[in-house]
Amino acid sequence: MVTTKKQMKLGAFLQGVGHHVAAWRHPDVNPADATRLSHLKNLAHIAERGKFDAIFFADVLGLPEIDNRLLAKGAIAYFWEPLTTLAAIAGSTEKIGLISTVSTSYLHPFHLARLFASLDHISEGRAGWNLVTSGTDFEANAFGLNNQIPHTERYLRAREYVDVVKGLWDSWEDQPYLFDQTSGNFFDPQKLHFLHHQGEYFSVHAALQSARPVQGYPVIVQAGSSSDGQALAAATAEIVFTAQQSLQDAQGFYRGLKAQLAQHGRDPDSLKVMPGVMPIIGRTEAEAQEKYEQLQSLIDPAVGIALLSAFLGNIDLSKHGIDDPVPDFPNTEGWQSRQQLLIDLARRENLTIRQLYQKVAGARGHRIVIGTASSIADQLELWFTEGAADGFNILAPTFPHGLSEFVDQVIPELQRRGLFRTEYTGNTLREHLELPRPRSQYQ
Amino acid sequence: MVTTKKQMKLGAFLQGVGHHVAAWRHPDVNPADATRLSHLKNLAHIAERGKFDAIFFADVLGLPEIDNRLLAKGAIAYFWEPLTTLAAIAGSTEKIGLISTVSTSYLHPFHLARLFASLDHISEGRAGWNLVTSGTDFEANAFGLNNQIPHTERYLRAREYVDVVKGLWDSWEDQPYLFDQTSGNFFDPQKLHFLHHQGEYFSVHAALQSARPVQGYPVIVQAGSSSDGQALAAATAEIVFTAQQSLQDAQGFYRGLKAQLAQHGRDPDSLKVMPGVMPIIGRTEAEAQEKYEQLQSLIDPAVGIALLSAFLGNIDLSKHGIDDPVPDFPNTEGWQSRQQLLIDLARRENLTIRQLYQKVAGARGHRIVIGTASSIADQLELWFTEGAADGFNILAPTFPHGLSEFVDQVIPELQRRGLFRTEYTGNTLREHLELPRPRSQYQ
Repeated sequence: MVTTKKQMKLGAFLQGVGHHVAAWRHPDVNPADATRLSHLKNLAHIAERGKFDAIFFADVLGLPEIDNRLLAKGAIAYFWEPLTTLAAIAGSTEKIGLISTVSTSYLHPFHLARLFASLDHISEGRAGWNLVTSGTDFEANAFGLNNQIPHTERYLRAREYVDVVKGLWDSWEDQPYLFDQTSGNFFDPQKLHFLHHQGEYFSVHAALQSARPVQGYPVIVQAGSSSDGQALAAATAEIVFTAQQSLQDAQGFYRGLKAQLAQHGRDPDSLKVMPGVMPIIGRTEAEAQEKYEQLQSLIDPAVGIALLSAFLGNIDLSKHGIDDPVPDFPNTEGWQSRQQLLIDLARRENLTIRQLYQKVAGARGHRIVIGTASSIADQLELWFTEGAADGFNILAPTFPHGLSEFVDQVIPELQRRGLFRTEYTGNTLREHLELPRPRSQYQ
Repeated sequence: MVTTKKQMKLGAFLQGVGHHVAAWRHPDVNPADATRLSHLKNLAHIAERGKFDAIFFADVLGLPEIDNRLLAKGAIAYFWEPLTTLAAIAGSTEKIGLISTVSTSYLHPFHLARLFASLDHISEGRAGWNLVTSGTDFEANAFGLNNQIPHTERYLRAREYVDVVKGLWDSWEDQPYLFDQTSGNFFDPQKLHFLHHQGEYFSVHAALQSARPVQGYPVIVQAGSSSDGQALAAATAEIVFTAQQSLQDAQGFYRGLKAQLAQHGRDPDSLKVMPGVMPIIGRTEAEAQEKYEQLQSLIDPAVGIALLSAFLGNIDLSKHGIDDPVPDFPNTEGWQSRQQLLIDLARRENLTIRQLYQKVAGARGHRIVIGTASSIADQLELWFTEGAADGFNILAPTFPHGLSEFVDQVIPELQRRGLFRTEYTGNTLREHLELPRPRSQYQ
């Protein structure tokens, strides 16, 4: 191994029994695993065996209120509250980072700051927060709103939200404790700082009740790739997960986002761009292709259309034939970058509704790479060396097999090429990512 | 052991390095333990060894904004977010219940329902929610309010909050999953129910994304003993933690609360009344008394006065001499029942400010029982058999020693008398408490 060579970062995106929307129907998969904590712990062990930087949970608040019969067919991701779940996984893992999505739109920043500070302590410095702003009306309906907050406002609010959260993470300077039983001073009173934040969206006068997080701040991740999302990421994020379909688009996104860092006085290396990739691995190219087609054949058309409709901003596709071209429709207040990605794809490849959902339903808009371990490693290496990615967020099509195949076949190939670590050299998620520990604003 | 004899329930209230306000200064205690997860796991193991029904965390959102120098002397409880902490403890325990306080005043019921549902799944049916409404202005300040919500309104809101939470816990009927890979039905669509709640305080249209909690509903606990608190408990609670100083008062409280259950069509056994008790255990009565005095001698007067002031509703005691009688002061919007308890105590025993804080600072208003294991068991047996308690919430003065002394000395004595289990007979917290598993409102 060439130890001085720059190495890629890898995240293992965990979701139910696989990322492919029809994963649960695959004969290799036990669908009941979706409801078991032991399954998630097993996936975390496999990912840690592969020396992944982190595991990663998506999150959505509740279920879309569409026909229950359709939901029942879709094997909607079954998931518990992600931070308690990661806290439970922390105890049975040692090194791997623990990243969860939490939306800024419906949880007060005091709670978020405290939850992530706790997870960072519980895991001894392995917590990461994937900041999203939510992109659906059904989530708004759970919290007393008829419609979601408009896109631009959600991101303005998120920007202020991050300031509040960091302010609370700085409630205590590092090493504040004296434990002086004789004098009766438990901590140094100069090292406690109440946040006094009075902003456009939040008024927060408070301090957390526990020490500064082990990592200073848990790692901040962002997944929004719209212009609002990129602006927020440039200001605040340390990892960006993104859905990119072509090398050229990914290079453009990478360059564009890194260029914006300078406006905030940030080094380009202080933010890692990690596109999503769904690897379909075979011993031969033909076997891989066959595996892919088997999964695709399991997609129920009604599920495919419903998923597509949700990604496009809840537009009604029922009045169109399934083999009609993808129609025009208005801009969404929801997941704008995901909508744009799909429109571009449909127009570029001149797709019908069926063809588009077939592409989308597989990896939910993320890139699918089909081939042998070696050819998949080639693809990852190409994007990594050609300025399109600092690493990848791996979306295994099925669990546990899709993940263990990646760990047992692709990772050794990346390691042989010197592109990925063979052992963890650090203990915290920041150390894995080669990100500095932020100093307290008071130090 | 007489197996047919009714047995008491026991909760182990965990907090920092002990419940006595000066615990951290005691030579038996390592104050650094307050900041360690391994310490909390150790306490949970000790309590499980003692066959306690549950461990129990208090919670407060942030710190009072008083002089940092005073906070530093008080060894304010150091704690993380309790649900992530209990999720971390779940994996290293097997049987013991896991109860946490969460306030209804600052967290949306969707989040609370989801967090406790997750903890109940993660722990395989051991979760309990101690419902509080918060009682301080500093917590309101963390969430954009200048002052806390008035007492009566907090409890009205809490009542509606519980309805929302139970509605969300019923999103799924029991056993909804089909996992039918061939037909493509993951679950039975008739077993999913969206909550449509439109009330005075909340509008919630949503369903949780995971199965019904293992216990149906996690056990609901309540600690407010004011008339508003009792009314809420009679309608919703299955355990009531209460601070009671005398057998007669405790009997009155017990009778009064149990009588209110009938108004809601509830059986008296469906709610367990568990007063708090701080046991100070010695090999002789004299040794126990000496231990108590040693702890009391470690209380810094400034800390004692500050704590007393907080319990009385943030009244300013500084204009009074420390050896003056306790003055009159207005009703609080905060912890009303705690305020009343202290006023009654001060008047009954004609106490000065110093004498009152000495009593309060020890156990924060809870009863202190000083003696040998046998005499402490006598006290617990008396309250249990004389209609004052269904069990006790044990507040060990120091950790871990105060708890392990109770487990090694008092619990065997209770077991010899047939008053406490010698082995767990169930797996869930409900089973320990002999509470039925609630049916879904849809079944």
